[in-house]
Amino acid sequence: MSTSIPADRLYMEDLEVGQRFTSASHTIDEAQIKAFASQFDPQPFHTDPATAEGTFFKGLAASGWHTAAITMRLNVEGGLPLAGGIIGAGGEIGWPNATRPGDTLHVESEILEIIPSRSKPDRGIAVVESRTINQRGDVVQLLKAKLVVLRRATN
Amino acid sequence: MSTSIPADRLYMEDLEVGQRFTSASHTIDEAQIKAFASQFDPQPFHTDPATAEGTFFKGLAASGWHTAAITMRLNVEGGLPLAGGIIGAGGEIGWPNATRPGDTLHVESEILEIIPSRSKPDRGIAVVESRTINQRGDVVQLLKAKLVVLRRATN
Repeated sequence: MSTSIPADRLYMEDLEVGQRFTSASHTIDEAQIKAFASQFDPQPFHTDPATAEGTFFKGLAASGWHTAAITMRLNVEGGLPLAGGIIGAGGEIGWPNATRPGDTLHVESEILEIIPSRSKPDRGIAVVESRTINQRGDVVQLLKAKLVVLRRATN
Repeated sequence: MSTSIPADRLYMEDLEVGQRFTSASHTIDEAQIKAFASQFDPQPFHTDPATAEGTFFKGLAASGWHTAAITMRLNVEGGLPLAGGIIGAGGEIGWPNATRPGDTLHVESEILEIIPSRSKPDRGIAVVESRTINQRGDVVQLLKAKLVVLRRATN
């Protein structure tokens, strides 16, 4: 994966609704899928290609939580350059298509909403939609996350 | 972690709204938190205890995606014994409290809704709330997931 970190990370004041970001990309292979699944989601459709053929997925598929973890990595490594880092309070997640061995994923994010905190003047919440997209243009994950964003210090 | 798999896994017909399930438990330590974060969420509050003190989390905290992955493992290994496995279409996720080194987590799940498929007579969707809870009773993750559930074959 890319390890580029943007020089300028963004504070709440730098964000605007409609602003878009694109991450680097990551290619997932069968070994990664099996390794993640054997640790966190040991179900045959994520661990055993032969058995996976006869399941709902009709072939080996990555755990949705693996897709989520890769998405986070791509956003942390520059896909979503927020000052203070990417701190999620929660959100909505969906997996409209499976992630398959050999898929090359990237993340496209958009700022949907910016909500200053009423009680804490140093921060706010940004609602960010991150679409994780494979090399065919299929969306494999749609995440609408509430992220903690920092205001610039005003001394 | 427990590796027990219940003998009887549940089909859609076996589920009812209000039905509850409790998983085995898993204790997370600093090494696990750092290992997951270095692979998928390399931010100082998840990788470096000293630096983490001065951050939003005021100490080392697990990535939310790590908590999600552990929750999945606990549910797959008997916490949520669904026939056909645990196949999520998506849902809502939140992390009301941080997961810390030394926390012992378990998952309590409840069936909220059962929706037979209109187009596919062999399956439906169950809406399941899974609360991931630490040894102090704090909820560290709340997940309301839409899961694919299978009907019994009717030949």
